[in-house]
Amino acid sequence: MTVEKRTPIPVKDAIERVVKESFVMPTTTVALDESLGYILAQDIIATYDIPRFNKSPYDGFAIRSVDSQNASGEHRKTFRVIDHIGAGSVSDKTLAQGEAIRIMTGAAIPEGADAVVMLEQTIEDDDSFSIRKPFEHHENVSLQGEETQENDVVLQRGQHINAGAIAVLATYGYTEVPVYRKPSVAIIATGSELLDVADPLEPGKIRNSNGPMINALITKHKLTSKVYKIQHDDLESSIAVVKQATEEHDIVITTGGVSVGDFDYLPAIYEALQANVLFNKVAMRPGSVTTVAVTKDTYLFGLSGNPSACFTGFELFVKPAVYAMMGANAIYPQIVQATLMEAFAKPNPFSRFIRATTTFNGKEMTVVPSGFNKSGAVIAIAHSNAMIMLPGGTRGYQKGYTVDVILTDSTAFETELLL
Amino acid sequence: MTVEKRTPIPVKDAIERVVKESFVMPTTTVALDESLGYILAQDIIATYDIPRFNKSPYDGFAIRSVDSQNASGEHRKTFRVIDHIGAGSVSDKTLAQGEAIRIMTGAAIPEGADAVVMLEQTIEDDDSFSIRKPFEHHENVSLQGEETQENDVVLQRGQHINAGAIAVLATYGYTEVPVYRKPSVAIIATGSELLDVADPLEPGKIRNSNGPMINALITKHKLTSKVYKIQHDDLESSIAVVKQATEEHDIVITTGGVSVGDFDYLPAIYEALQANVLFNKVAMRPGSVTTVAVTKDTYLFGLSGNPSACFTGFELFVKPAVYAMMGANAIYPQIVQATLMEAFAKPNPFSRFIRATTTFNGKEMTVVPSGFNKSGAVIAIAHSNAMIMLPGGTRGYQKGYTVDVILTDSTAFETELLL
Repeated sequence: MTVEKRTPIPVKDAIERVVKESFVMPTTTVALDESLGYILAQDIIATYDIPRFNKSPYDGFAIRSVDSQNASGEHRKTFRVIDHIGAGSVSDKTLAQGEAIRIMTGAAIPEGADAVVMLEQTIEDDDSFSIRKPFEHHENVSLQGEETQENDVVLQRGQHINAGAIAVLATYGYTEVPVYRKPSVAIIATGSELLDVADPLEPGKIRNSNGPMINALITKHKLTSKVYKIQHDDLESSIAVVKQATEEHDIVITTGGVSVGDFDYLPAIYEALQANVLFNKVAMRPGSVTTVAVTKDTYLFGLSGNPSACFTGFELFVKPAVYAMMGANAIYPQIVQATLMEAFAKPNPFSRFIRATTTFNGKEMTVVPSGFNKSGAVIAIAHSNAMIMLPGGTRGYQKGYTVDVILTDSTAFETELLL
Repeated sequence: MTVEKRTPIPVKDAIERVVKESFVMPTTTVALDESLGYILAQDIIATYDIPRFNKSPYDGFAIRSVDSQNASGEHRKTFRVIDHIGAGSVSDKTLAQGEAIRIMTGAAIPEGADAVVMLEQTIEDDDSFSIRKPFEHHENVSLQGEETQENDVVLQRGQHINAGAIAVLATYGYTEVPVYRKPSVAIIATGSELLDVADPLEPGKIRNSNGPMINALITKHKLTSKVYKIQHDDLESSIAVVKQATEEHDIVITTGGVSVGDFDYLPAIYEALQANVLFNKVAMRPGSVTTVAVTKDTYLFGLSGNPSACFTGFELFVKPAVYAMMGANAIYPQIVQATLMEAFAKPNPFSRFIRATTTFNGKEMTVVPSGFNKSGAVIAIAHSNAMIMLPGGTRGYQKGYTVDVILTDSTAFETELLL
C-alpha cells in the first residue's frame, strides 16, 4: 500500500489542458424553436438590408419635406390626405405637392414622400391636417439598411443562440438552424457510503447528493444526461461501467473515488481504459484531487465526492469543456469584481474558491461567503450565485477588499427594486 | 379619429404596479430531477444534523489524540492498526491505547477515536504506522452538525431551486419537491405586416421575429407556452383570440398593436375583456407604449412590436411578474455597475435602456452598446448580455462614466481565461 505522489498544477494550467483537447462535436440542424442554448455552427449572413425598405417608425402622415418649409405656429401648412396605408400594405400612389398619405408604424414610405409627421404633431380635419413646423429630409424615417446591410455577418459561428439570435434567425427565414451537436453526458456517483435519495438512512452512510446536483447542472446547460446507478467500491465492476459509459457518451463525469485511498479506483480505471490523465491534482481548494482524463473522443471528469469541491470542479473544468466541444467562442466563466463584506482567513497557499452570494446594494457589487464553506458543505451551494476566487500565494482577506468573483447562477438573490 | 392621450409613469412605478397584482400560482409537487428552475413552496427543515456523524474528511487513520502527545521527528509514535473501514462502513471496535483504525474519506469516526492522521503524515509498516507530530482533539474530524443542525431551515420557501438546492433536497431524501406551479403563457404576435418565418418575403412586410424571441425567453425561464398564429389587424377576431388565450393561460403576451394608430386594437380588446389597464405609457425608451392589464387571474402584457422595445418590456415587466406568480423571493433583475467604454448621447428625458455587452477586462467590468440600438433594432439584442440603464432626467454619458447595468443573459461573451 503506497501513497501515490501527485504534483499539483495551477488552476489556469489545468483549465487550459482541458480545453486544449477540444473534441468539437459534429454539426447538425435543429428547428428554430429548439435552438435556444445551442452554439451556432456557421456565420449568418444578411441576405437583405434591415430595414428592408424605408419605413415609418411612427403612426402619422408621410409627406414631402419640401412642402413643410416655413411652417410655423402662425402659418400652419395644410396637407391633403390621398391614401391610407396600414402596416404591411404598400401605397400605389405617388405624392404630389401638398399631398400626404396616412401611414402606420412599420409601413413602407410611399413614393415621393421623404418624411413622416407624427399624429401628435398634427391638427386633423376630415381629409386634411396641418402642421406648425418644417420637417427635414428623412425626418422620422427608418432608412433602408440603417441597421444592417446585405452581406453583413449578423451572427457569428460559435455564438450562443440566445433569444435575440432567434429573432435574427427568424427575420432571415431560418426555420432550421445550423448548430453543433451537444455532447451527451454520463453521470456516475461512486462510493459504498452512498444511498439513493429514496433510501432510508443507514449508519455511516449518506444520500447521494452529487449525482442529482451534477445532473441539474447538466440540465441547466440544456444537455442530455444518463444518470447511472450508484457505483459501489468494486474495481472490476467500476471499470466495466465506466468503460461502457465512455462508449455511449461524449463526457463521463464521476463523483468520488478521486482521492488516494484504498478504495479510490479512478487511477486504475483510467489505466484500464488507456485514458490519458491530463492532471490529477490542482493547486486549489476545494477540489485539489479533481482529475481529468481523455480517451480518443471522450472526456472523463473525476470530480470530488465532496459537494462543494464537486460543484467547483464542474464550474471550472466541465463547463468550459462542454462549451469548447459545442464550438463556442466564449467558454470561460463570467467574472466580476465585488467588495468583500466579511473577512476571510485563508490558511493555505492554494487558490481558494468560495461559494458566495453577490448582491448589488445600489452603490456597488458586494459579496459574502454563503455560510459554512468547507469542501464537504452542501447547503452553501444552494445559497450561492457566485464563487469568490482568492488567488494562490495570498494571505487572508479583510472586509472591504475588492475580490474577483465568478458568476455561477443568474437567478438574482436581490428582492429590492433597484431601478 | 382622435389621438388617445396617455400619461407616462416612471419605470419603477410601472414595475411595482405589475408585481403588486401578484396572482400567486397554486402549489404542487414535482420529481426532484424535474425541479430545477421551480420556486420552492415551503421551507425545508433539516431532519438531522449535517454531518450526521463525526466523519473523516481524509483517507488515513483514526487515532486517540492523547496517544500522539510528544510525537516528534526524533521520537515517532507508533500505532497498531486493528481494523479497516471503508466509506459507508462502521467499525464495531473501540480504540484502546496505541491503536488505530484505517479510515476512508467520509467514514464515521470509530468509538474511542477523536482525531485522524492523514495517510501523507505517516510512515507505514505492515499493520502499523508511525507519526512525527502530536494531533489535537478533533484534528481532521468533520464534526457532527458543524454544517447544519436538526431543525435548521436549510432552504427557504420562495427560493429558486438551483443545482445546490437539489443537492440539499437529495440529502434530506426529497424525491418529490413542493413547488409553485409555473404560469402558462400565450404568445400572440399581432400585425398585418407580419409574415411567418417560413413565408417568402412580400413588399412592405417583415417576418415575425418577436414571437420566436418571446417564446425563447419564456423557454429560457422553463415555462411552457402556446404560440398562437399571427393575428392580423382585425378587431373582432383579435378580441376573440385574446379572450380565448386569457381563458386558457395565466399570462397572455401580445407583441405589436400597442401604439395609437388606427389599427392598434389593444385598448379596444382590453375594454371588451373588462381588463384593468395598469398603465399604457411608461417614461422610458424604448418601449414607452408598453401596456400591462389584468383580468381576474390573468396578466395581459402588451409589448411593443419593435424588437428592442419588445425585449426590454419582457425583461422589465414580464420577468418580475412571472417570478412573483411563482412565489419567488427574488423577482427583480440582477444589476451591476460597469464602466461605459463609449459615449452615449441621450436626446430625451425618459429613462433609457440600451442593449449592451458587459465584459470583465481583468481590471473592471466594462460595457458598450451592442451596435445599432434603435427601438426597431433586432441584431443588437443577439449580441447583448445586458442593458445599460440611464435614468430619466440625465443628459448624455461620456466614455469612462460608471453606469448601472441590468444583466439579461448569463452566457459570457469573454473568450479569455481571466483566472
